[in-house]
Amino acid sequence: MSQRLRHLTTLEHLPRETIERLLDRAETMRDGCAHGTRKLDLLSGRTILNLFFEPSTRTRTSFELAARRLGADVINFDIGFSSTSKGEALFDTLHTLEAMHLDAIVVRHKVSGTPEELVRHAMSGVSVINAGDGNRAHPTQGLLDMLTIRQHRPDFSRLTVVICGDVKHSRVARSDVHALTALGAKEIRLCSPQALMPSADEFPQCVITDDFDAAIEGADAVIMLRLQKERMAVTDLPDEAAYFTRYGLDNRRLERASKGALVMHPGPINRGIEIASEVADGPQSRILEQVGNGVFVRMAVLAEVLGR
Amino acid sequence: MSQRLRHLTTLEHLPRETIERLLDRAETMRDGCAHGTRKLDLLSGRTILNLFFEPSTRTRTSFELAARRLGADVINFDIGFSSTSKGEALFDTLHTLEAMHLDAIVVRHKVSGTPEELVRHAMSGVSVINAGDGNRAHPTQGLLDMLTIRQHRPDFSRLTVVICGDVKHSRVARSDVHALTALGAKEIRLCSPQALMPSADEFPQCVITDDFDAAIEGADAVIMLRLQKERMAVTDLPDEAAYFTRYGLDNRRLERASKGALVMHPGPINRGIEIASEVADGPQSRILEQVGNGVFVRMAVLAEVLGR
Amino acid sequence: MSQRLRHLTTLEHLPRETIERLLDRAETMRDGCAHGTRKLDLLSGRTILNLFFEPSTRTRTSFELAARRLGADVINFDIGFSSTSKGEALFDTLHTLEAMHLDAIVVRHKVSGTPEELVRHAMSGVSVINAGDGNRAHPTQGLLDMLTIRQHRPDFSRLTVVICGDVKHSRVARSDVHALTALGAKEIRLCSPQALMPSADEFPQCVITDDFDAAIEGADAVIMLRLQKERMAVTDLPDEAAYFTRYGLDNRRLERASKGALVMHPGPINRGIEIASEVADGPQSRILEQVGNGVFVRMAVLAEVLGR
Repeated sequence: MSQRLRHLTTLEHLPRETIERLLDRAETMRDGCAHGTRKLDLLSGRTILNLFFEPSTRTRTSFELAARRLGADVINFDIGFSSTSKGEALFDTLHTLEAMHLDAIVVRHKVSGTPEELVRHAMSGVSVINAGDGNRAHPTQGLLDMLTIRQHRPDFSRLTVVICGDVKHSRVARSDVHALTALGAKEIRLCSPQALMPSADEFPQCVITDDFDAAIEGADAVIMLRLQKERMAVTDLPDEAAYFTRYGLDNRRLERASKGALVMHPGPINRGIEIASEVADGPQSRILEQVGNGVFVRMAVLAEVLGR
Repeated sequence: MSQRLRHLTTLEHLPRETIERLLDRAETMRDGCAHGTRKLDLLSGRTILNLFFEPSTRTRTSFELAARRLGADVINFDIGFSSTSKGEALFDTLHTLEAMHLDAIVVRHKVSGTPEELVRHAMSGVSVINAGDGNRAHPTQGLLDMLTIRQHRPDFSRLTVVICGDVKHSRVARSDVHALTALGAKEIRLCSPQALMPSADEFPQCVITDDFDAAIEGADAVIMLRLQKERMAVTDLPDEAAYFTRYGLDNRRLERASKGALVMHPGPINRGIEIASEVADGPQSRILEQVGNGVFVRMAVLAEVLGR
Repeated sequence: MSQRLRHLTTLEHLPRETIERLLDRAETMRDGCAHGTRKLDLLSGRTILNLFFEPSTRTRTSFELAARRLGADVINFDIGFSSTSKGEALFDTLHTLEAMHLDAIVVRHKVSGTPEELVRHAMSGVSVINAGDGNRAHPTQGLLDMLTIRQHRPDFSRLTVVICGDVKHSRVARSDVHALTALGAKEIRLCSPQALMPSADEFPQCVITDDFDAAIEGADAVIMLRLQKERMAVTDLPDEAAYFTRYGLDNRRLERASKGALVMHPGPINRGIEIASEVADGPQSRILEQVGNGVFVRMAVLAEVLGR
């Protein structure tokens, strides 16, 4: 059996069996919550701190719900988002929080690598869970995406996935690629405008293209990324309508995918920019299942890193 | 027995027996809390989300206390108050929250009708409780006002109530009128400057006047509304002192009411504008009893909509 | 036995035995948390409200953790920091909160004396705990500093302490002096630039000086205060480097203190301004022990004022 995780900062280089154990555990949480037991007491008496240097109500709420459902206490440490919070000041904050005898810190920070730095500088037994760092990793999003796919397409070796949008700046895309690679997905296609395309060196295992119509052909899962409006400017596409024409997902384009292909999005969605309402609200959309799975995956991760 | 409520968006058209059941239940909560049991476990394992699009520390805290006293978990979802949060984006937020398996959403929004829209668009079993929408309804405030009145004047059929201030824009006034009507109050008088007077069509069952001295004559309960300072401009009264002279409640004016008349205010009060300190802090003031009753009423509403 | 406290607003004039009882109780809390019991249920069903008119994530989090570890519910009442919140409006807020049946209010306010005013105006059995008021008192910081000293130097009658920095505006310095005086410290030295020096009348029991090299000579504990950058201007020292040269603590200067002298700081530290990293992170630093003790002291205070 693979070793229990003490931290979760990235899915990169995680062995397949670890990822599968976390997904199995998330299913157990789902069953536990479904069968009348609304609250498990696995983490009773434990304290989890949400340390968000970037605002994110959705992810923070999902972690808070996950921790509460396991009986843990949750503290929201609302750091001024404008403060630099870099270098030594960040580690002083870490050490102060550790000294208060917390069990886990859930951290989001715009600087890539911050969670690993916290792990390196941590002095006590505190566990660090990455809730998103820069462009680099969003491991619980990666896991919840895998859980959602597995519930519908359990055999990853036959799975073709396309991830479309601003791949270059997306931590979601990176964590998805890491997980899909570990789970042995058949083919991973990354699609974005030239200006938002990642380097091929970073993703040697993927097909990279700027042609969405070709990329979606026969795909079993279509993961659409949120377009940050400030990134639109660099795409060479004059406006949102033009972006949608080239890279938006509507029913017509979805027909090119395999029958019943899963439509996914990390949310919040921009309707009419990267995804049409007819698709977001359509029968193939798994977007809300992703949200629900997010709570179970975060329960699984908290139970993993804080388990005795 | 009237049907159990699944949501509480307004008191309008609620049958008398439903309102009375909620008030009875609030009394039970009060007794429970008074007799040593500081916490009831009726809603253990349930999760209630405060979704406030308008800031309101008092009402949010009252709901949070009510939920905690029933053993429920509470999540505060702090939506950016400046964001438009309208239309589809609002429903996407709703569906995201539903997907996280919440049991109830307590919502405040400046747009009238938002709670009903949430009910119409809700996809799962989530209950919606209105904590104030636009000018339209503030049903838990209406209920706590009725509870406060009933504790002192149990026979509504002999009750004359005057509501004074900016009736036109007041959701509190509307919910009070709905509840007083259902409970069979003898007479409801609405008093405000011409510019802040509601249309008579909306309140056919009420006496409407701009003469506070006449309106307060013989009243058993006097409900003063908070004057929003930006509304002062339209009143044709040159300043706060002039407003107070015409529409403020002081001891001299209170003497016109019936002996021991109840003085009420939804808070926070503007001393010297709509109410004199001698009255707000005087022996007939029920303002703090209203606050205390607010917690019990909210416990009753949560237990009603989430009860099994 | 000295009387149980109902409130804690200042350490001034508290008898030695009361302070010692609180410190003993904090040690009991520390033992309780260390021996596997992660959560005590002393305050189960009680509700504690954090009422912070000045932002302070660290102190608020410490109180929140303390309350949760005792099984209490915690409500954060986020008052607009910009609102005046003075005079009658403050008492109206107090009375509103009391009416919601809270058990304790933890208050921080920039106006000195606010906690005592709340005690004077409180109408119910609510307990008031000062989390820092103006320049005046920060009693739980004073207690945690005493606990930290006592763990290393149990005999206060042989203890020489120096407090260095902006003593004039420091509520921490005042609470430390009050506690050290009550516990019979041998000598208390206050050191600061002339412009930040308190009046000798206020501290007749202390040695006051602007010469840090002399003040630190033979000291057993060195408490460094955080320099507010806006105060720098008045010190007659041209810049941070010049301040550090005269009043900063580095290893060279620390050698003048007694062997193994304790280095303390209420945090957050300004590295290179009032304290060198070599000292802050060095073997004599007790700064993180202070943070840990802060939680236990606050548990002790909550248990004291809310105990039955």
